Amino acid sequence: MENNFKKYWRIDENITFLNHGSFGATPIPILEKQAELRNLIEKEPVKFFVRDYEEYYENARISLSNFIGSSQKDIVFVPNATTGVNTALRSIPLKENDEIIVTNQEYNACRNALNYIAKEKNAVVKEVEIPFPVKSFDEILEKLINSVTKKTKYLLIDHISSPTALIVDAKTIVKEMKRLGVETIVDGAHSTGQIPLNLKEIEPAYYTSNCHKWLCTPKGSAFLYVREDFQKITKPLVISHGENSPRTDKSKFFLEFFWTGTGDPTPFLTIPCAIDFFNTLIEGGLYEIMKRNRKLCLQARDFICQKLSIEKPCPDEMVGSMASFPISDSKIEPKPPLFIDSLQDKLFFDYKIEVPIIYFPKYPKRILRISAQIYNDFEEYQRLSEILKKLI
Amino acid sequence: MENNFKKYWRIDENITFLNHGSFGATPIPILEKQAELRNLIEKEPVKFFVRDYEEYYENARISLSNFIGSSQKDIVFVPNATTGVNTALRSIPLKENDEIIVTNQEYNACRNALNYIAKEKNAVVKEVEIPFPVKSFDEILEKLINSVTKKTKYLLIDHISSPTALIVDAKTIVKEMKRLGVETIVDGAHSTGQIPLNLKEIEPAYYTSNCHKWLCTPKGSAFLYVREDFQKITKPLVISHGENSPRTDKSKFFLEFFWTGTGDPTPFLTIPCAIDFFNTLIEGGLYEIMKRNRKLCLQARDFICQKLSIEKPCPDEMVGSMASFPISDSKIEPKPPLFIDSLQDKLFFDYKIEVPIIYFPKYPKRILRISAQIYNDFEEYQRLSEILKKLI
Repeated sequence: MENNFKKYWRIDENITFLNHGSFGATPIPILEKQAELRNLIEKEPVKFFVRDYEEYYENARISLSNFIGSSQKDIVFVPNATTGVNTALRSIPLKENDEIIVTNQEYNACRNALNYIAKEKNAVVKEVEIPFPVKSFDEILEKLINSVTKKTKYLLIDHISSPTALIVDAKTIVKEMKRLGVETIVDGAHSTGQIPLNLKEIEPAYYTSNCHKWLCTPKGSAFLYVREDFQKITKPLVISHGENSPRTDKSKFFLEFFWTGTGDPTPFLTIPCAIDFFNTLIEGGLYEIMKRNRKLCLQARDFICQKLSIEKPCPDEMVGSMASFPISDSKIEPKPPLFIDSLQDKLFFDYKIEVPIIYFPKYPKRILRISAQIYNDFEEYQRLSEILKKLI
Repeated sequence: MENNFKKYWRIDENITFLNHGSFGATPIPILEKQAELRNLIEKEPVKFFVRDYEEYYENARISLSNFIGSSQKDIVFVPNATTGVNTALRSIPLKENDEIIVTNQEYNACRNALNYIAKEKNAVVKEVEIPFPVKSFDEILEKLINSVTKKTKYLLIDHISSPTALIVDAKTIVKEMKRLGVETIVDGAHSTGQIPLNLKEIEPAYYTSNCHKWLCTPKGSAFLYVREDFQKITKPLVISHGENSPRTDKSKFFLEFFWTGTGDPTPFLTIPCAIDFFNTLIEGGLYEIMKRNRKLCLQARDFICQKLSIEKPCPDEMVGSMASFPISDSKIEPKPPLFIDSLQDKLFFDYKIEVPIIYFPKYPKRILRISAQIYNDFEEYQRLSEILKKLI
């Protein structure tokens, strides 16, 4: 059966591409929209940036905020979620001995940012260990709640964890933390387009998410949501013209993030186009695509786990369009400079399968993470399972 | 006479585009190279970013470092010079009451960054007033030297000032400051491609420059040079995977800046293409283009100044391919939200001339800045002068 959606992507047809999750991939109509915007910029760069850009920016904010259930005023664009997390961490008023909670499943880049910024301010990073395999979300919630002390001020947590691909109930976490006097920074790097979002319901202090992963916009498009009471203390990493803008028609929060030096804004200016594209691609639009991807992902995970006699590592409710499961320990130490697992290399070079194998909790323990986007077919995972069966 | 070079740009032919300086503009062959690189990314995003990207990055570093006279190891890419300046300012070890010198002609965004970061660290920003019109570079140098006290630790200075377009002798400034125990951060936002650069001779603590202005790469490409002794204390604004990388084959400075989250690296990956393009475009390549642009710029400035009976505001040696001169005071207060001078609006809307008018030192005093890139012709400035003559 020919997949009807593959044609919208430029992905190499010789590759079995099962890693949408790491960087995303963009459909051709969205790339064409981006090229159109770029041509507009090149036609008259000064007119574009000085006179027209803000309207494009606002249209993208309107379109995205409707999709993620936030107020337009509460979101700004950043190149990626890592930048969003860094921005939040640099902005929060951390004092000596303040505690920030993070889990052992936090994305490495953001964990580094947390460690670095906390150290600068003599704050304390407290790691909560979340097991994987995990029995239920409640197990995670309980561990988070139990880790809170009087000194705990913030929690940094992934909405969908990166190595283990576990979806947590962000709304409940934020609410429970708030009850304990703890504010939450949610790193939703993988969330937008993978799961339905309603930020007005979640109401964290900060929420950041990439649009270039599961909303499939070009690389370099993400948003940072900042709850209104945190906007006054939140500064972009790059201080620019907004700092002393004489404008009073918009918030300083907007004015500062709106301009952080000349760059290419087209990755996030295509957000309205991406939302329209998927919403008209199939009946039911983006929410239907999320459902289909999740269904395919679960089906694929269950099939592979069964084939390889692996116990399902988490309840179905915690799975979206990515799923991770443990595989046998690595026997070959990964080599610099890339430190890629030898099995991942073998799958890629010998079988043209692109799928990530991650050392978790650390080498030689490892997990494999599959992604399911509408350009993927069940047969691709069947093939993966057969090859894995042979290789491990 | 038809300009032979206009055809390489996508700039609207109905516009007299005399503001290359604000955002640059990119020739079609460089945009095509960028599109090619983007297609490569979309073909296999994981292969590109994980396996291939570093080689592209290094090729861009090699090509650029040869052009700007630095060691490949001492430069990294940033989206723009404002980010470069913010990075330098956040990295330097400022203590309470340390002084940083800056001139009144500093670019507003970077001045904001300086004020903000200095305030955070209780350091003192000391403004040195540079007159405009100015008699000579020596007048500037003397003022800078005289402003140094025992508490002075750093100087932040533009290699080519933004409002007034004055080129300073960065090498002499850095040397004289060093002699007085002061390290220099040079903001060369407008320098790369406008004037020959030799960073090994200038040897500042930091040097940052946009490539998207006068090297004409796509928007979002700049470099940050960090002298070796400053590399260990220099951190990117976004802390990411590099912080705890197990790699030992390259410096931590490189590893940290190389990856700051997913984005579109193609603007700076086209640097080798841009250098090749201009070097083969005409006999003598980029240096010949710099000479031609400067010649046209001086010719244009002198012509307009003569027509409008304006005294030349600086010696020719301080002029590159941009030139500013004072014009009559504004009589109409600029309106929010854009605060664009009414004469600039009139030139744009009624005469289709794109040229910036800047309030300097402040409203109602104003200066007009012309740019000369090889797609410009003398006739365009003649036309501007005639219209200005009529309007002011």
